[in-house]
Amino acid sequence: MSYKFIDGSVTAAKGFKASGIHCGIRKNKSKRDIALIFCEKRCTAAAVYTTNLVQSSPITITRKNLADGYAQAVIVNSGNANTCNADGDLKAQKMCDLTAQALGISADDVIVGSTGVIGQILPIEPIEKAVPLLAAELSEDGASNAAEAIMTTDTVKKEVAVETTIGGKTVKIGGISKGSGMIHPNMATMLCFVTTDAAISAGMIQKAVKTAADNTFNMISIDGDTSTNDTLSVMASGLAGNEEIIAEGEDYNAFVEALTAVCRELSKMMAKDGEGATKLLVCKVSGAKTEKDAKGVAKSVICSSLLKAAMFGADANWGRVLCAIGYSGCDVDVHKVDVSFASEKGTIDVCRNGAGIEFSEELAKEILIRDEIDIIVSLNDGDAYAEAYGCDLTYDYVKINGDYRT
Amino acid sequence: MSYKFIDGSVTAAKGFKASGIHCGIRKNKSKRDIALIFCEKRCTAAAVYTTNLVQSSPITITRKNLADGYAQAVIVNSGNANTCNADGDLKAQKMCDLTAQALGISADDVIVGSTGVIGQILPIEPIEKAVPLLAAELSEDGASNAAEAIMTTDTVKKEVAVETTIGGKTVKIGGISKGSGMIHPNMATMLCFVTTDAAISAGMIQKAVKTAADNTFNMISIDGDTSTNDTLSVMASGLAGNEEIIAEGEDYNAFVEALTAVCRELSKMMAKDGEGATKLLVCKVSGAKTEKDAKGVAKSVICSSLLKAAMFGADANWGRVLCAIGYSGCDVDVHKVDVSFASEKGTIDVCRNGAGIEFSEELAKEILIRDEIDIIVSLNDGDAYAEAYGCDLTYDYVKINGDYRT
Repeated sequence: MSYKFIDGSVTAAKGFKASGIHCGIRKNKSKRDIALIFCEKRCTAAAVYTTNLVQSSPITITRKNLADGYAQAVIVNSGNANTCNADGDLKAQKMCDLTAQALGISADDVIVGSTGVIGQILPIEPIEKAVPLLAAELSEDGASNAAEAIMTTDTVKKEVAVETTIGGKTVKIGGISKGSGMIHPNMATMLCFVTTDAAISAGMIQKAVKTAADNTFNMISIDGDTSTNDTLSVMASGLAGNEEIIAEGEDYNAFVEALTAVCRELSKMMAKDGEGATKLLVCKVSGAKTEKDAKGVAKSVICSSLLKAAMFGADANWGRVLCAIGYSGCDVDVHKVDVSFASEKGTIDVCRNGAGIEFSEELAKEILIRDEIDIIVSLNDGDAYAEAYGCDLTYDYVKINGDYRT
Repeated sequence: MSYKFIDGSVTAAKGFKASGIHCGIRKNKSKRDIALIFCEKRCTAAAVYTTNLVQSSPITITRKNLADGYAQAVIVNSGNANTCNADGDLKAQKMCDLTAQALGISADDVIVGSTGVIGQILPIEPIEKAVPLLAAELSEDGASNAAEAIMTTDTVKKEVAVETTIGGKTVKIGGISKGSGMIHPNMATMLCFVTTDAAISAGMIQKAVKTAADNTFNMISIDGDTSTNDTLSVMASGLAGNEEIIAEGEDYNAFVEALTAVCRELSKMMAKDGEGATKLLVCKVSGAKTEKDAKGVAKSVICSSLLKAAMFGADANWGRVLCAIGYSGCDVDVHKVDVSFASEKGTIDVCRNGAGIEFSEELAKEILIRDEIDIIVSLNDGDAYAEAYGCDLTYDYVKINGDYRT
């Protein structure tokens, strides 16, 4: 491991400033609801998006703007998804125009995002008033305000940054993300904005973001619903001064490793802060025939509503793990499967060769009552490994989603 | 429609008797936990089973016994799934042996089922004592006791019967089923036992049961978890006296229509009695390019945790319907989609051409507060139609599953 975690997030890397304020899309005046991220230099940039056929207007506009591999700012609101609206594309484009005007950059260099309720017309007046204020408030200390402004049902801000060395130069990568419901990404996830001062070509940054997302955000599931707005974007200013990464090799690998670390931490934060969640669940699958099987089994387990409810109740109901492995569609010999549960309290084996073994219910309860649980599955049928991230299913998930819109 | 609903269930058809008692697998002595169904005549019979790779021992033994297309009795317990147990196959076979001995039939003509907790050793002593008592209690009035004995977290018994005319003879078909959690069948579902006095060959009954299951049980989802024990079996005594159905044609079609009606009613009962459910949801998808697309869209909508929670809250959050259509993986033009909600209170249009339209929130609330809700999706892109059955997601689902095992 050649990186280390540092304080900060989207303004940790050289060249970036951010801000976040309340503009009025959300009724609660104490909640920031619009964020801006700006780089003093035009960046190479790339993004991955939801695979849902229904896609938000911000995604339509961002795809167009990132087609050339460059961006210089991010504008994003919460409280309204700007999805399934007849005038959605016009409004998303307007957000870019307003941002470009306030910052003196090209509207084609703006990444735009929205998150919130689907199918309600986005009011543009609050945004028209907000953008100049956001531009005036940009600062290196503004990352937390931006992180807060993109929250919806999130209960905690998600910020992380790492530092690594590439080509003898210190490089920083930091990100913010949001999302605690409608999370079951298949290509990217909810909203996540990452910045770095690494010098990396547009082509290689696209490759890196896809690789990082596949092993982190794409391995989270909170409720099995794939959002219409999922976007992960990365902007690279190049101000770290390393020789530009233009091909695979040692420098590229160091960048991907550090970018993946940022994405993994944000993924775990998102899973732990899943709507109504009281616990982070990590399913660690080893001994699979292929990486695809390892990922498939890990996601199937982490997605099981029955297992998620059992974890909420600290109930060592390992039969539900076996059941989820069985319907995963993966190549598994169910008679070779071992299952254990673990937390900071310890590890307990509950299933060997696909059948139950005796274990202490008391110890199991003590282990499962903690707030970070590992579900350890050994398939004993190969060498592939994968992790998936999720959370328990609780009364509060139902409460939050039973009356989210009104 | 050439059939009509009648009173009764598995003993409605000629030749069948049933019984159900408490034997002690479940601790609650007031809950019946073992059932027997018997036909005075050896029946043609067929079944469909779960697609989960992890399969119960009763399925292993039933597959073997039905390989010849004949059966004469069903023995089934609740309170223990007899799945993932090292001695499971031996115990399931023992249940058949005991039943055969008590009834004076061949052990190969017994269908065996179990439902309950996975991975706990099945105690055989209570069953050894119970089977002779079950045999002694067999009666044409015993169907309700049998229906009660197979319930787990179900809150209501599921019994239905129909009468139709085949080849000039009156034919009856009736069934009982159970299951309110771990329900997301892909080939059959939970436990369902159907009997008929139709004369139909083993080959045609297998074909009929597959057809009926695909359009009914396989279109239910309660929680996305596919059980390890799902079994739907049909036994036909032939005592109605119709000319044996040995090929497709008018008689076969009448049989399939009536069998499908029995299966559809039981499916709706199961969905409405989903764990913790307060409402039956039926998603009706029309205008799809293919039947596969219609089914895929209907199931995706009915499976959405977010939509299910919204329905619990009587919240007309149609964006979640669009979202679920978008990630269904089906061939859909999202810009042509119309959505309405309906109940006995009326119908309200909420989305036209993939975008929101103005509607009365008050009327929507009045419609959605009822206990049977239709989610009507028009894809406007073809002629195919499908229905899927589900329920809302509630606090009680979490409560039931957070502490089911202990």
